[in-house]
Amino acid sequence: MAETFSARQRLAAEALGSALLLAAVIGSGIMGERLAGGNVAIALLANTLVTGAMLFVLITSFGPISGAHFNPAVSVVAAIQRNITWTMCAAYVAAQVAGALIGVAAAHLMFELPVAQVSLRERSGAAQLFSEFVATFGLIAAIAATVRLAPSQVAAAVASYIMAAYWFTASTSFANPAVTLARSLSDTFAGIRPTDAPAFIAAQFVGALVAMLIMSRLLPPRTKTQADTSR
Amino acid sequence: MAETFSARQRLAAEALGSALLLAAVIGSGIMGERLAGGNVAIALLANTLVTGAMLFVLITSFGPISGAHFNPAVSVVAAIQRNITWTMCAAYVAAQVAGALIGVAAAHLMFELPVAQVSLRERSGAAQLFSEFVATFGLIAAIAATVRLAPSQVAAAVASYIMAAYWFTASTSFANPAVTLARSLSDTFAGIRPTDAPAFIAAQFVGALVAMLIMSRLLPPRTKTQADTSR
Amino acid sequence: MAETFSARQRLAAEALGSALLLAAVIGSGIMGERLAGGNVAIALLANTLVTGAMLFVLITSFGPISGAHFNPAVSVVAAIQRNITWTMCAAYVAAQVAGALIGVAAAHLMFELPVAQVSLRERSGAAQLFSEFVATFGLIAAIAATVRLAPSQVAAAVASYIMAAYWFTASTSFANPAVTLARSLSDTFAGIRPTDAPAFIAAQFVGALVAMLIMSRLLPPRTKTQADTSR
Amino acid sequence: MAETFSARQRLAAEALGSALLLAAVIGSGIMGERLAGGNVAIALLANTLVTGAMLFVLITSFGPISGAHFNPAVSVVAAIQRNITWTMCAAYVAAQVAGALIGVAAAHLMFELPVAQVSLRERSGAAQLFSEFVATFGLIAAIAATVRLAPSQVAAAVASYIMAAYWFTASTSFANPAVTLARSLSDTFAGIRPTDAPAFIAAQFVGALVAMLIMSRLLPPRTKTQADTSR
Repeated sequence: MAETFSARQRLAAEALGSALLLAAVIGSGIMGERLAGGNVAIALLANTLVTGAMLFVLITSFGPISGAHFNPAVSVVAAIQRNITWTMCAAYVAAQVAGALIGVAAAHLMFELPVAQVSLRERSGAAQLFSEFVATFGLIAAIAATVRLAPSQVAAAVASYIMAAYWFTASTSFANPAVTLARSLSDTFAGIRPTDAPAFIAAQFVGALVAMLIMSRLLPPRTKTQADTSR
Repeated sequence: MAETFSARQRLAAEALGSALLLAAVIGSGIMGERLAGGNVAIALLANTLVTGAMLFVLITSFGPISGAHFNPAVSVVAAIQRNITWTMCAAYVAAQVAGALIGVAAAHLMFELPVAQVSLRERSGAAQLFSEFVATFGLIAAIAATVRLAPSQVAAAVASYIMAAYWFTASTSFANPAVTLARSLSDTFAGIRPTDAPAFIAAQFVGALVAMLIMSRLLPPRTKTQADTSR
Repeated sequence: MAETFSARQRLAAEALGSALLLAAVIGSGIMGERLAGGNVAIALLANTLVTGAMLFVLITSFGPISGAHFNPAVSVVAAIQRNITWTMCAAYVAAQVAGALIGVAAAHLMFELPVAQVSLRERSGAAQLFSEFVATFGLIAAIAATVRLAPSQVAAAVASYIMAAYWFTASTSFANPAVTLARSLSDTFAGIRPTDAPAFIAAQFVGALVAMLIMSRLLPPRTKTQADTSR
Repeated sequence: MAETFSARQRLAAEALGSALLLAAVIGSGIMGERLAGGNVAIALLANTLVTGAMLFVLITSFGPISGAHFNPAVSVVAAIQRNITWTMCAAYVAAQVAGALIGVAAAHLMFELPVAQVSLRERSGAAQLFSEFVATFGLIAAIAATVRLAPSQVAAAVASYIMAAYWFTASTSFANPAVTLARSLSDTFAGIRPTDAPAFIAAQFVGALVAMLIMSRLLPPRTKTQADTSR
């Protein structure tokens, strides 16, 4: 894809994608809980399928424009690896958070809930934080490997990974600081107490950095040309 | 794909595809409700998987023939963007509606229900209409992006999007005026009262047009050659 | 794929594929019913996912060898269209039926059931037969279109179609005479009474032939070269 | 893919992949059982989707590095066919087992369970062993066919096959000696008694070898060039 996109277009893609992602995560959580008749596994199955399907759509649609990060941990890793500047990284993160908050508000409006909410759902303790470490470690490892070795499969791989991580981590895998922030402002199925969010976010960044270091040993250094044209 | 198809072949593909789509939507709704023992989440999960699977098949099969619109909102956007003429657009919509009605009748016949029905299921209110706006906005945005940037993934992306939208919008995402009309004539799981249909359809067209405008800013203008050969 | 395969290899692929397909259909039906606690929708969901996944694997694995018919209706259509000889068609059907019976026996052995059984499950009436007509019509239409217009997607399309058809037809879509015969010899979730099988099979062939005729109008005639190298 | 990887990188990929695979299998089993309210079919559905999604991610990510075996049966078949040396095979198996044990421990930590456990879950008898024979036979057959005939589809095919096999075999398809060993050390949903493991592993190797022999008759011999560059 030889086309290039302006900073404005890239930031709009990050914001719009993050909004649709959060609308999907929060909205399907509400719908799942309403319809599942108390069976949490069925509600989480629906939440899982919807999140995976939406990630596939968004990364396929917006990947060629902005790289489809939708995740500050991904953008920070990209900045450390000099794929984007730190200025652009900051702008990406701002766009992601703004978009995520809009997505949460849209989900609340669609389901006739108060737009502004604060989650009361406790998610804390060492096992939860270790879960977020593992979840984000695996996510960044999968992205690093597929971007290098199977670029046509990044969307399917990320979607599949998150679907798996919803179930194999005890925290249901937030694995994304912008998503964590936004979910702290929704007192629904997918919520998290604002006081629990900072530790989640810290664990996510640690997992991302460890994955970046390990994968840089596992993958050969990129040639100049690859670095220039990658995502 | 260098092959070209006659207007007759394209209209037949739109009608046949719309018929199979509606048979799948209505039929799986009936089957799901009959088997799910009152758990609406399980019925909707089945309805979701079937709709997504059928959309993937139909867009893969008929996309090269007619573009696989199966949706007046898609055809109107195509006409505004001069990808098809307004005359062809009108013929597409007629074929879609006719096919959709045949599909509903086929589903009723398969499940031994009266062929002609009128839905009594209320779907109204601002939140429902906002849901249809969001659902169709996202659908048209995903189609616009993937047709331009990832043409081999259009079928998988549209199928995935609709599966997500069944759950993250409060209206279960009709997102299609022909589908809305046809579903008003089925008093089953997937039905909608005829009196509620016009507002749904209006919200769908507004969502489609807003998506078209926003995506035209996000995507660079097509070159002549691309426009000629696209879908 | 320039490789060619001997008649023996092709028939072995048809038999082995049919055996694994039936083992999957019957085995997952038994497992689903045992675990689902009486919720038939959950059992059918499992049966659906397993059948779709196995079809994808088998068509991907054996498609390049034998065309991966696994279905007498597909083989008869191929013979009418002169893609295989009638002699080869008869051998294909024999291999499919033999393989299917072996697959049923293997499933029974795995689940500690009597190897030889006769189904008592009634599946009859006009609505059931119309369902089989629709199911096979759609299957052959999807195969005809994707083999011509999207050959890399045949496996995914057929798997998706059958997953949809399990739910949108009232008969759960057998759509395959060899599968119908084999399922008549299993008194489990997926069974059918032997006395009901002939009408099912007749409806399947009628649906296949109608689809063949309609799709031959929708698709332009193949050139010599295409016909020679197709599947 | 012209890149080559060192033995160290390949073994690290096998260990890391096996760890993430087992974390997914064990973790989703725990989560599924906790949330499913006693409905084993729903727990197994979640376990199935997660295992399939993770296999797709891991084979896509690590396939280009190590071949993504994650399974001693696959490595032994590769050694017999001279695709890897017996020394490398032994190292692969050691990396797989070590990684698998780490993955089990990680899952236990995430869910606040004792790290070291021994399963009490009985899985024995001729039907269970025949199930493992069938499960591994089908797995190796699918890998042999797709590596040769559809190399871009190996990840999707293996993931789909295992999802199917979880349901159509009576043993829920371990089909992997390293996974069997590791699961014997987890007294959770996915466990197996250590005393039952050796017979499972033997049945798996027999199934793998039979599949290797049959598929070598079904597939034409590889040319020199193919053998050199394969996986």
